[in-house]
Parts: sequence; structure tokens; C-alpha cells
Amino acid sequence: MPAIVECVPNFSEGRRKEVVDRIVYSIQSVPGVKVLDVEMDPDHNRSVVTFAGSKDGVQEAAFRGARAASELIDLNKHTGHHPRMGALDVLPFVPLSGVSMEDCVEIAQRVGARIGKDLKIPVYLYEAAARRPERANLENVRRGEFEGLKNSILTDDSRYPDFGPRQLHPTAGATAVGARMPLIAFNVNLRSTDLEAAKAIAKKVRASGGGLPKVKALGFALESRGLVQVSMNLTDYTVTHLSQVFEEVVKEASARGLDVAGSEIIGLIPLEAVCDVAAKHLKVTNFTSNQVLERRIWG
Amino acid sequence: MPAIVECVPNFSEGRRKEVVDRIVYSIQSVPGVKVLDVEMDPDHNRSVVTFAGSKDGVQEAAFRGARAASELIDLNKHTGHHPRMGALDVLPFVPLSGVSMEDCVEIAQRVGARIGKDLKIPVYLYEAAARRPERANLENVRRGEFEGLKNSILTDDSRYPDFGPRQLHPTAGATAVGARMPLIAFNVNLRSTDLEAAKAIAKKVRASGGGLPKVKALGFALESRGLVQVSMNLTDYTVTHLSQVFEEVVKEASARGLDVAGSEIIGLIPLEAVCDVAAKHLKVTNFTSNQVLERRIWG
Repeated sequence: MPAIVECVPNFSEGRRKEVVDRIVYSIQSVPGVKVLDVEMDPDHNRSVVTFAGSKDGVQEAAFRGARAASELIDLNKHTGHHPRMGALDVLPFVPLSGVSMEDCVEIAQRVGARIGKDLKIPVYLYEAAARRPERANLENVRRGEFEGLKNSILTDDSRYPDFGPRQLHPTAGATAVGARMPLIAFNVNLRSTDLEAAKAIAKKVRASGGGLPKVKALGFALESRGLVQVSMNLTDYTVTHLSQVFEEVVKEASARGLDVAGSEIIGLIPLEAVCDVAAKHLKVTNFTSNQVLERRIWG
Repeated sequence: MPAIVECVPNFSEGRRKEVVDRIVYSIQSVPGVKVLDVEMDPDHNRSVVTFAGSKDGVQEAAFRGARAASELIDLNKHTGHHPRMGALDVLPFVPLSGVSMEDCVEIAQRVGARIGKDLKIPVYLYEAAARRPERANLENVRRGEFEGLKNSILTDDSRYPDFGPRQLHPTAGATAVGARMPLIAFNVNLRSTDLEAAKAIAKKVRASGGGLPKVKALGFALESRGLVQVSMNLTDYTVTHLSQVFEEVVKEASARGLDVAGSEIIGLIPLEAVCDVAAKHLKVTNFTSNQVLERRIWG
């Protein structure tokens, strides 16, 4: 099984397709690196690229993407709803298979150092790669955004970058480079229009409310469908399994007399997480994702 | 997504490793074909090779395996418990992804014709590839085995081969070539020593007892573990899903006051079948195996 690292850079350009295309092209110019998904968001004026490959391939591709973004995006001309501080705004590395979180932290350090040195862009290490505890949280790293950081990076010692110069790149700003687990976006829809109930359930299950660790949750109304939704992000499915999250929401819903209408998995999900759920349902002991036929073929 | 065909030839040699190695080598000599598994069974004196690849690649590899077996195995010297009629005994093609059962039937016909013509081995088409209804069942095709078929192929018109000469190959016998769905071997263990109960449940769930279509089942005692087992083969998981089978066994067990101790998936399982179970458990509507991250990377 070859080692596979995933990388999910967010670029501060979601409107000019030719710019995003050139960045994506620079990423997939590295042999063995595969771009899995590109999402351009014109409202946020931001694009999310998902790619994967070997450790070496992903490092090189991430650097090429950073370089292309620094040449093509000028933060002084950028507007959009999403907070941002750089042309390449965030660059997380994700362990997929045959790779540990420690490997991804090392990759983040290596790529971060190169972006700082070769592109003269200040780099902050965040999440699992953070060297200062407060930088584990991306919000702290990005506080003030491009405009505010111009000054505070010079004056505030707590904003000293981990790599690169102690001044913003004039057009490309600063970049947060990190390591994290794959995210799973999972929504459970309830046969009810009681938004308060959905919000109460979300509050009960999420980590910040003392619920399940590594789970974020919000309650929403799905007005056109006459349902309410508990919308969740699992930030580490190996700590809190998908089936645990589902069962907890079902339990909280039925305590309020509400039925589950159905669930949704948004975007991509790691094979391991799917196998966990199936093994749980069938009470299979000793099932591993190595038993999946396609994994033998592709892996 | 590239088209992938699986092929699971059974060879009448399970003791001489150097012979099996040479056959496997001939199979993987085809570019793009990947050998996933090799199981040598000395008691049955039989080996099962699992490989996969593109339509063209798998055809060529299957033929090379048949040719190597015809050169290396002499049925006149073969003994073993398992019924067999050829050096390459059975050659099923299995649709995995981007391939239909019709495609696999066509592949079986093409490879069968080539084995008949080039290797002078009589070939019988079986299962989904069968041209005579009674040949859908492999037992009918293999009746009399190598020794009995020597004569009946000459005298009994119902044993006329679909391809190749109307006489057994002097050393390599005859070969059954077919197309079928992937098999899933699934066992449910019950916290009981009541073998009769396990047998009764097996009889109730299996297709031949009027139970679930495309399910074979037998009851066994797991003496060392103090359990009984309902041991099943799903011959088409798209007709009867794994979760249905599990739920049916649970239902029949609890009707007899028995608990499930755990389940086992033996060997490989298609990604699609795992995704079906996970989607069922989480009540996810619209989940497809295309959302599995690794599939995007590998597929």
C-alpha cells in the first residue's frame, strides 16, 4: 500500500477561472499527484482544491501551488465574505493511508519553510503542526486578516511568523500551513420544523457543549423541505466514529419525540470511516479496509 | 473511472508451489493486470488465483494462465478432494466497476473460444455465460469429473463442448469458463452450542429453502469457541444486500432466543457492498461509492 497524503489548499480567488485553472495546472504538473476536486466559490471569492499523492509529490505540488498563487493573486484587490490573510490562505496536509499525523506535521514544516524562504511569504503553522498552542486554532492565526496583519506582524510579538520574513508579502500576504485529520461533513435531517429542537440537539452533541469530542454541530431549518437539520463536521472520525454521532443524534431526537428523515454525507469520506460504520452495523469483528477488493486493485 | 474486470481461476494444483508460481507469473506478465490473492489448498490439491485489470488485460492474462496450466499440470496424476475436470478447472470473469455482466459474458466467450482453438481444450460456458440452461450450474458441467468425462464427452450429446474439440485434452482435461457476480462470504456466529438451531436458521434464510434470493447458507458448530455459525455465500449482493442477510439471521436467531456473538467477512468484499451497509446504517440517502476519497485517488 503506497503512502498517500491529501492536501486541501484554500486560495483567495473564486471568480477568475483562468487564475484558478493556472494554479490547479501548477499543482497537477507534479507526476503522481492527482487533483481530486476543485471548488470555486464566487461569493467568498475563494477556491478549495483537493489533491493527493506521495509525500514528496504532495510537498512539491503544494509549493508550486503557493508560488503560482503568489504570482497571480493580489490581496490588495481581493474582496469576499470569507476571512483571509494570503493569496494561498491555508494549506493543510492530511494523512490518508500509510502516513501518520507526525509525517504530515513534518511535511507542513518543510513546505512552510520553503514558502517562507523562497517566496518571502510569512508562514504560520496551525492545527496539529502549531508550535504555539494558540495557533492550533486557525481563527487566532488569521485574526485581523490581510489588512490588519500588515501592521500587527511588525508590532505584536505574538504574531511573529514560524517561517519567512517578519512582514507581509506585499501582494500575497501570509499563509497558514498545517496538518489535520480528514474532515467528514455529516448532516442528519429531522422530520420536524422545530428549529429550536435542532439547535438544542446540535448544542448537546457538539464538543464545545461538552458532547462528543471532535464534533462540531449547528442546527438549521431546511425550509423548502419542511425539515430541520443537525449539520455536523467530524474533525477526527477515529476519535468519535460516524456511527456514534448518528446514534447520539437519534437518541437526542427521539428524547424530543422527533424522527430521523434521513442523513447526508457531503463531499468525500475516507474508506476507513465507511468500513467502520459497516463493521459496526454487521457486528463484524476484525474487518479491515484491506478486505475491500478495490483497495487491493488501486492501492 | 477505468473499467475493471476481476477473474478468479481455479487450478488443479495446490501442492507444488513452483507450479503455482509459474502460473501466477504468466498471469501477471500482462501489463496492467494485478494479482490480488493466491490461495493454495494442499488438501483439495487446488489453487485459487484472484486477479484484476482492464478488459483486454484480463482476457490475455486468463489465456496465459490457461496455457501455463495446460503445460504444467497432468490431470492423470492429480488427486484431491475437490471435484475437477481440468488443469485450469474453472475460469469465472466478474464485473467490478465500469463493466456489465454482459461484458463479462462476452469476455468468457472470447477467452473460451481461444482456449478451445489454440490449446485444444474443450470449453463449457457456465453461470451467466451458459448457452444451455443446465450449464448455468457448475455441478452439471463438472459431473463425472476428468475421469468420467473422458468417455461421456464422446458419447453423450448433452456433454458437447461450447468450444474446442469433442475430446478431452489428454493431460489438461476440460475447462469451465463463465461470468458471475462477486461472491461475499459472510458468517454470523451465535452465542449457543445448538447446532440444530444454526442449521434451521441456515435453511430458513437460504434461497434453496425459499428464503433470500442469491443466498447460500449452512449451519456449523465452532467447537473450540463454544459457538454455532450460520455460514453464508451471497452470490449477488445487489439482489440481496448484506444488511438484509444480517437482519434476517438476527431475526431468526432471536425467534429462537439466541444472541449474535459477532460476524465475519471472509476474504475480499466489493466497495459497493460496504457502502450499501454504511448508508443503510446511517440512513444516508444518495450516498455513492464515488464519495469514497480513496476511490477518487485510485480509480
